[in-house]
Amino acid sequence: MKISQGFFKTFKEKPKEAENISTELLLRGNFIDKEASGIYSILPLGWRVIQKINKIIREEMDAVNGQEFQMPALQPKELWLETDRWDHMDPPLFKLKDRHDKEFTIGPTHEEVIVDLVRDRVSSFRDLPFMLYQIQTKFRNEQRSTGGLLRVREFLMKDAYSFHADVKEFEEYYQKVIEAYHRIYKRCGLGAKLVEAHSGSIGGKKSNEFMVLTKEGEDTIYLCGACDWAANIEVVKNIDKCPACGGEIKKSKAIEVGHIFMLGDLYSKKMGVTFTDKSGNTKPIIMGCYGIGIGRLMATIVEVLNDEKGIIWPKSVAPYQVHLISLDQDETAAKLYQELIDAGIETLYDDRQESAGVKFADADLIGIPKRITVSPKTIADKSCEIKERNKENLEMVKLEKVVDHIKK
Amino acid sequence: MKISQGFFKTFKEKPKEAENISTELLLRGNFIDKEASGIYSILPLGWRVIQKINKIIREEMDAVNGQEFQMPALQPKELWLETDRWDHMDPPLFKLKDRHDKEFTIGPTHEEVIVDLVRDRVSSFRDLPFMLYQIQTKFRNEQRSTGGLLRVREFLMKDAYSFHADVKEFEEYYQKVIEAYHRIYKRCGLGAKLVEAHSGSIGGKKSNEFMVLTKEGEDTIYLCGACDWAANIEVVKNIDKCPACGGEIKKSKAIEVGHIFMLGDLYSKKMGVTFTDKSGNTKPIIMGCYGIGIGRLMATIVEVLNDEKGIIWPKSVAPYQVHLISLDQDETAAKLYQELIDAGIETLYDDRQESAGVKFADADLIGIPKRITVSPKTIADKSCEIKERNKENLEMVKLEKVVDHIKK
Repeated sequence: MKISQGFFKTFKEKPKEAENISTELLLRGNFIDKEASGIYSILPLGWRVIQKINKIIREEMDAVNGQEFQMPALQPKELWLETDRWDHMDPPLFKLKDRHDKEFTIGPTHEEVIVDLVRDRVSSFRDLPFMLYQIQTKFRNEQRSTGGLLRVREFLMKDAYSFHADVKEFEEYYQKVIEAYHRIYKRCGLGAKLVEAHSGSIGGKKSNEFMVLTKEGEDTIYLCGACDWAANIEVVKNIDKCPACGGEIKKSKAIEVGHIFMLGDLYSKKMGVTFTDKSGNTKPIIMGCYGIGIGRLMATIVEVLNDEKGIIWPKSVAPYQVHLISLDQDETAAKLYQELIDAGIETLYDDRQESAGVKFADADLIGIPKRITVSPKTIADKSCEIKERNKENLEMVKLEKVVDHIKK
Repeated sequence: MKISQGFFKTFKEKPKEAENISTELLLRGNFIDKEASGIYSILPLGWRVIQKINKIIREEMDAVNGQEFQMPALQPKELWLETDRWDHMDPPLFKLKDRHDKEFTIGPTHEEVIVDLVRDRVSSFRDLPFMLYQIQTKFRNEQRSTGGLLRVREFLMKDAYSFHADVKEFEEYYQKVIEAYHRIYKRCGLGAKLVEAHSGSIGGKKSNEFMVLTKEGEDTIYLCGACDWAANIEVVKNIDKCPACGGEIKKSKAIEVGHIFMLGDLYSKKMGVTFTDKSGNTKPIIMGCYGIGIGRLMATIVEVLNDEKGIIWPKSVAPYQVHLISLDQDETAAKLYQELIDAGIETLYDDRQESAGVKFADADLIGIPKRITVSPKTIADKSCEIKERNKENLEMVKLEKVVDHIKK
């Protein structure tokens, strides 16, 4: 993409609504725009990151036999009365009426809709197990929206729902999803800690969150220094020894990047979803659900991977692989841009009539992994200058070797 | 995907809510599920079709310099007061209040939001032109939802918005989008007619619809038999000669699969969006917008491409390329399935314990382009049977040649 032909504007000043570093950098770098409190547009640069994250999530969900689909945001009141959640969600539901005075919510989650779908189509153990997932917009009527993309009122979420004939088979599947989640975070450049969590308005006998340890996070967790045990402080308050091994306990602020739930037969019983097992007995279906907030995940990557100049995207989710800068060498740069594009290398080309200072500052702010500069100095040597965003050294590379150099 | 491991249930009976053939076949074939009047889930088979359509649309929008992004569904009342549309949309807006009694709509369209975004970021002719598009959920508070996916209350839409410094440049761009739209429909297996249209609640000086001629459609158009002229009857009522060439006029029922608008400076003036031109003069930005309803496009493909047995998907948007059926030959079929998957061929594998009749009927209903059957008869000849959905003849192909045969 040539910047001159696109929709592009960066900001030098810290925006007043930026309560944390990820919001500041994503707003200044043209990744997001605030429409109203807790309501954002994702601009083209940000959307490219989201699409990369979505691709990783889809691959890992497909690898645990997930099938992607899409449920509607509008959900009729009747379904929420069946589970007694119409007036008992926290935060409360957004509610609206259609022109015939029929009541709906725009859903913060989809247990009611999917269970309604499944009860019409599953009758036998032969129909189980299966897992469905969607990447879809959710709405939450928060009291106060804070922290940019970390607590919003409308957001893209990957929510998955699995259905099983028995508890043992479900628990094995739950473990597989945990492993898939760890792979997702790792591929996005993050390490996440599995912790015991409070199930909130979703319910179920047990739930787990995935926490990324950062300087600033909404959540506080207890971590054992000796074993793997960890828990959100909402679950276990005021302890000084690890309940698993007796080891020392540490406290840490953290960002939740995923929440998965052992729903068991909670919704199946409330909404009457049964199947016939091998012996001909009627049983409630066992169910799990698995969420990842996509915008929040993008923000968390920025929260962890940045320096005083801007964002440092990992290659896997960077909006482009190469940020090409022309310093008064538009003809050479345009030729190189075309070569990079032809070689399938995602390139952002800064062809604006701006100073070197402005262009370098924007490149550092936006955080694309590799910066290529074509200037009178490099041209004299039939070369360009390549710099990696997370390293200090500059490398001179002959123009005819650039594509190979980037691809290696 | 092995059917035994997925979420799969077809229906023999015509559902009572099926008012047209596309709704009947998409419901019976497990592509969609009705949640409430005019509100549908898109099931895994349907979602694969939608994703194929989305990929085609993205490629064609990117080819006319579009940048994908995402705007929120929740839109504050204040923005809609600026354009005087809060109480004047047809159908009327869905309206809701947040917990602080602030009013929002869940948007049927996004002119207000994008113009608000653009006015903060565009100031000079150097910032123009550009085009942004999104594939996003829209909400319409229809009086009556009819015709399955053809008139719904919640739907996925590709909406694009372009911004220009002058009318001539805009009109050239508008023509490029028309060509991109024709490529989209052609790639989806459809031919669409460009017609003059009524601009409705969107407004602007001129708009065009793309119409697919079908037996059953919501719209009626006038077509000239002698020249290219065509118009929705909403625009020109009661004519008997072509206004362009004087030729004979025909009348036809049709389905609208796209609507594009020459908005000009309508929204720029209402919302105060100006730029400074080369001479230093302040001018309103010239704007166009371009919509395609994605679910409606999927339904239209089915409306056109079907026979008495079911859907006939074109290869470009088929949920899978191959429908593999095992008739008591699970070992050979499983091996062939793995070979097809390894070769990158999207394959739906019917590994259920069902009769040949059930499996063949489902294959015809679902409409995947190629059916491969492995049976005792074919195995005796180390072969399988390949049938194309839109042809009658069967072809025997040696098992070791199947991948090459499918790929050619």
